[in-house]
Amino acid sequence: MRFLSDNAARVHPRVWDALRAADAGDAPYDGDALSARLDEAFGALFEREVAVLWVATGTAANCLALSAMVPPHGGVVCHREAHIEMDEGGAPGFYLHGAKLMLAEGEGAKITPGAIREVIDPIRDDVHQVQPHAISITQASEYGRAYRPDEISAIAGLARARGLGLHMDGARFANAAAFLGVPAAEAAGDVDALSFGCVKNGAMSAEAIVFFDPALADVVRYRRKRAGHLQSKGRFLAAQLLAMLDGDLWLENARSANAAAQAIAEGASERLMHPIEANEVFIRLTPAERETLRGAGYQFYDWGADAARFVAAWDSDLGEASTLGQAIAAL
Amino acid sequence: MRFLSDNAARVHPRVWDALRAADAGDAPYDGDALSARLDEAFGALFEREVAVLWVATGTAANCLALSAMVPPHGGVVCHREAHIEMDEGGAPGFYLHGAKLMLAEGEGAKITPGAIREVIDPIRDDVHQVQPHAISITQASEYGRAYRPDEISAIAGLARARGLGLHMDGARFANAAAFLGVPAAEAAGDVDALSFGCVKNGAMSAEAIVFFDPALADVVRYRRKRAGHLQSKGRFLAAQLLAMLDGDLWLENARSANAAAQAIAEGASERLMHPIEANEVFIRLTPAERETLRGAGYQFYDWGADAARFVAAWDSDLGEASTLGQAIAAL
Amino acid sequence: MRFLSDNAARVHPRVWDALRAADAGDAPYDGDALSARLDEAFGALFEREVAVLWVATGTAANCLALSAMVPPHGGVVCHREAHIEMDEGGAPGFYLHGAKLMLAEGEGAKITPGAIREVIDPIRDDVHQVQPHAISITQASEYGRAYRPDEISAIAGLARARGLGLHMDGARFANAAAFLGVPAAEAAGDVDALSFGCVKNGAMSAEAIVFFDPALADVVRYRRKRAGHLQSKGRFLAAQLLAMLDGDLWLENARSANAAAQAIAEGASERLMHPIEANEVFIRLTPAERETLRGAGYQFYDWGADAARFVAAWDSDLGEASTLGQAIAAL
Amino acid sequence: MRFLSDNAARVHPRVWDALRAADAGDAPYDGDALSARLDEAFGALFEREVAVLWVATGTAANCLALSAMVPPHGGVVCHREAHIEMDEGGAPGFYLHGAKLMLAEGEGAKITPGAIREVIDPIRDDVHQVQPHAISITQASEYGRAYRPDEISAIAGLARARGLGLHMDGARFANAAAFLGVPAAEAAGDVDALSFGCVKNGAMSAEAIVFFDPALADVVRYRRKRAGHLQSKGRFLAAQLLAMLDGDLWLENARSANAAAQAIAEGASERLMHPIEANEVFIRLTPAERETLRGAGYQFYDWGADAARFVAAWDSDLGEASTLGQAIAAL
Repeated sequence: MRFLSDNAARVHPRVWDALRAADAGDAPYDGDALSARLDEAFGALFEREVAVLWVATGTAANCLALSAMVPPHGGVVCHREAHIEMDEGGAPGFYLHGAKLMLAEGEGAKITPGAIREVIDPIRDDVHQVQPHAISITQASEYGRAYRPDEISAIAGLARARGLGLHMDGARFANAAAFLGVPAAEAAGDVDALSFGCVKNGAMSAEAIVFFDPALADVVRYRRKRAGHLQSKGRFLAAQLLAMLDGDLWLENARSANAAAQAIAEGASERLMHPIEANEVFIRLTPAERETLRGAGYQFYDWGADAARFVAAWDSDLGEASTLGQAIAAL
Repeated sequence: MRFLSDNAARVHPRVWDALRAADAGDAPYDGDALSARLDEAFGALFEREVAVLWVATGTAANCLALSAMVPPHGGVVCHREAHIEMDEGGAPGFYLHGAKLMLAEGEGAKITPGAIREVIDPIRDDVHQVQPHAISITQASEYGRAYRPDEISAIAGLARARGLGLHMDGARFANAAAFLGVPAAEAAGDVDALSFGCVKNGAMSAEAIVFFDPALADVVRYRRKRAGHLQSKGRFLAAQLLAMLDGDLWLENARSANAAAQAIAEGASERLMHPIEANEVFIRLTPAERETLRGAGYQFYDWGADAARFVAAWDSDLGEASTLGQAIAAL
Repeated sequence: MRFLSDNAARVHPRVWDALRAADAGDAPYDGDALSARLDEAFGALFEREVAVLWVATGTAANCLALSAMVPPHGGVVCHREAHIEMDEGGAPGFYLHGAKLMLAEGEGAKITPGAIREVIDPIRDDVHQVQPHAISITQASEYGRAYRPDEISAIAGLARARGLGLHMDGARFANAAAFLGVPAAEAAGDVDALSFGCVKNGAMSAEAIVFFDPALADVVRYRRKRAGHLQSKGRFLAAQLLAMLDGDLWLENARSANAAAQAIAEGASERLMHPIEANEVFIRLTPAERETLRGAGYQFYDWGADAARFVAAWDSDLGEASTLGQAIAAL
Repeated sequence: MRFLSDNAARVHPRVWDALRAADAGDAPYDGDALSARLDEAFGALFEREVAVLWVATGTAANCLALSAMVPPHGGVVCHREAHIEMDEGGAPGFYLHGAKLMLAEGEGAKITPGAIREVIDPIRDDVHQVQPHAISITQASEYGRAYRPDEISAIAGLARARGLGLHMDGARFANAAAFLGVPAAEAAGDVDALSFGCVKNGAMSAEAIVFFDPALADVVRYRRKRAGHLQSKGRFLAAQLLAMLDGDLWLENARSANAAAQAIAEGASERLMHPIEANEVFIRLTPAERETLRGAGYQFYDWGADAARFVAAWDSDLGEASTLGQAIAAL
């Protein structure tokens, strides 16, 4: 009964089928027939022209996307607890050649135009201070919170007004979109590039960088190779992405994960630290309570001294999740 | 009848089996049971203690290995036509933070102690010139030539004498080892790190960086994450590597590829540009001759104006290769 | 009546004399006779063996020193308002190849072992989080506060215990040492490298990087050249540094500046935001009060909405400073 | 009788005067009155609008200029023996974040459109190979050869046709312009940025980066600070540059140096390795002959086994140079 994370979950059977079907030799790198279909497939999903590149990890997706928006001497505004700040081993420093992350505050690890302005307005426009060049938001956030379309619009408006690029880390974009119940285009809003996560959602090793500004993709093509992320058998990454889009598997899987998270949360409403808007559940639990749950066979991470994080995946068992919810309620 | 490259070949059935067997959820990143077995499995192959990290591409393997040997202000001696110089989109510049490749000459894209000294001896030991910190050799070379154990020893001796690290790009290490008919330990010799290639040899998306100096691995663990190359479902990369080692599949596949290359070369002995010591065949062919072969259904790359490169893969059909050899002989 | 900053002050006559005396041609770069005397001269001051390199700016001094302690994938703990974080245009990101500044809190822009531990203790020792490799403290701090010898000892002890390098930004080291009234060796304490500032203290364009661990200097020699900071006529930089040490001019100048700061502060004791331990005076002043002072001919910077910063330099007129103090008292 | 180099020569008296005149306090960094005059002063010299930034070294000037033209994943074409390739300690790798120098051949360390095309035409326009983004030429070249205006035009035409930036390393621009006898504008031609050297020509520590495309300067302002090259007392650098322009001191000094070089060469016409078009003289001399000259008190560098390099500076004594020429003739 593993609720540790969604990032080690199984690969969905339809992804396996797509992988096997891609076996027959084809052109190397991204010259294959499957990679060639990505722009159209994602364009249909997002209802506009896009340029799409596959990579193996969310860290690579985030940092490559940002590398096309931010010069080495620039900065990126993000939440203080954003994945790029906290959990990517300094990858933004590497990919952006020393550009600076500028940390904004915000409830639920979401940022607002106001929080962004609090960071950038005090920056004097002189060479002694790093100037912001982009904003990065996370959909869903590190605490499983979803940006509403109007919230994204407001940030995008600020970005445009200040001449800043806008990137969305969508490691759990699917979960946010499933929760919001809006088309993918609205869940992404007017960002310049989206890291469209699949690995946590049923794929094996493929994420999509969706460029709504295709000029950025032209730069990132070179940077992807330069980062060692252009795989020779790219057809296997493209196959995974297409399988995720086909029949909206991405949404179906996210709904399963979200439902399991809701089931866990149901028994814990008094203890919830954040509303459940994706597939993560943060619950106040004493050490003793955590021990009880672990004794009952549940696996999860501690979150500080008095809380725990449960993450449901596409393959989480809904029954197990409900039972967990009840076990929490019974504490 | 594709002899374009080995880097888009099919995935070997035993690798597929290993991938499927790895599906069940496990710890993320490299915390899984399969990743934990790599050091031992490669240690057995190389008959000494090693530390092994998986990555998805040869470019990442080469550059991460070198990044632990060379400071940003240093240099790496390699052949003028080495993959790191010619075909990695500037990845060494990225991973080594601007360190310099120092280009040596050598027949068949191999270098010798003499060629290395020609590069490094004229470098004044002052701050105006970049100082060498490592040597990188390629086994088999870009022209499919294998370093003999004594050749590697001689280079390793020079490296030690000058305090330089020694890296081996083994994208086609298996083909060289199969040709040499010596144990893996001798085909690698006394290098500090080896990029042990599997993708061209039957794997899907996994290469091993084998560190004979484990202290280097401790640095690269951080650098791999920082480069976005620490995949969440690392068990699938470990599974591929273990499958390649299991029952010496790596050697079996390389022998098949080498045999097909020999079969092609048999009909072309007069035209051969390089002895066949791996799975690549470089042949002098006029444009008209190339057109004839292409008309007969053979796919391959031009190599300059008057030559062509044929690459056999583990899944090349030996009959097709022989027929191609005969077709060349008949030109 | 300029109290804007000390960084545009005049050059001291004895520095001018030294510059003129250095005119006659000599060996280029740092091969000249004056540069050769630096290690000994600073060694005498600090009562231990040191290796000393000149550079033109404090930013270069700080970042070069740190570049020898921190790998690109590492981090540096410093105060949230440290110069390297706030005012160097992202230079640490450039020189350290994307390493991360880790921001600690602390009154008066000073940090303590406790504040450092609050930053580094929560960092999990895994590859997802950047690991600290050095600490940087500022003597005197951005608010003109001096670290006492025992405070430095405590930080140095923590640094040693955790295997971290320790750097001191001494842009105003002289002012701190003059205030503390202790030997230079005690004002620096057991740091690995010190940016010994001279430009704000009577020099034209020379700072010294004093390496108490000479192995660091060996690396920085290459990095200085690589950063374009190895001037051909280095003798003029060495000349300035030697002139500053000669007859303790560095201390004499700092005492003058400190005295002027004390004179300003005397009339403003109720308004002082920080004790005066160097040559900077931060005073609570309303906009109207600032206007009054400016109307009287005083130049200074606003410090937020309700305060002002006055900086005295070595050539500040003590009479003017006293009059300013009286003018503030009369507000 | 030093003919080792021009880079350690004395500072011209008129530069000293300008330095002393700049002593009085002013705004820090480049906010001073002298720095503010640079654009106009250089604009008058080059007969067009320019943006000018001071830095302390030629290495910084070259690399900062190029950093605004070349992304980290790009390349710069230059001569195999260019200063940026041979003598800057890898500074381009640092400033350009790992971009690649692409080495062209050419007599006298000059390159031609043909030589440039030989480098860039074979580069496939794909992500596996680094793409060129700029060209850098040196006026006068490493062997003291001057580009004629039509030669520069031809290179500039190629640069424009291929969308490449064009940079000129003018460490000895003055000597080339003096030799060519054309206006500065013609000696620079249609380049995007020029490193206008002064340190070798009578200044103490100031070079000008002249941007003919002012947008590049806007980027470099940030990069200069980030590299620690924005000096607080920038007025002293601006003063040097203005003094060099004033009354065409730059040209007068270069003529003196060139005349001395001609005087040396006069006695060595049979032995000259390159025509004298600036202030450097490369002469075939056996070890024994070199010993003879050194015995007579002449200082110079060996240039390989059978040659020597003599460099005349602005303050070289013409009589000494003539005597040296005669001594060579008498060998």
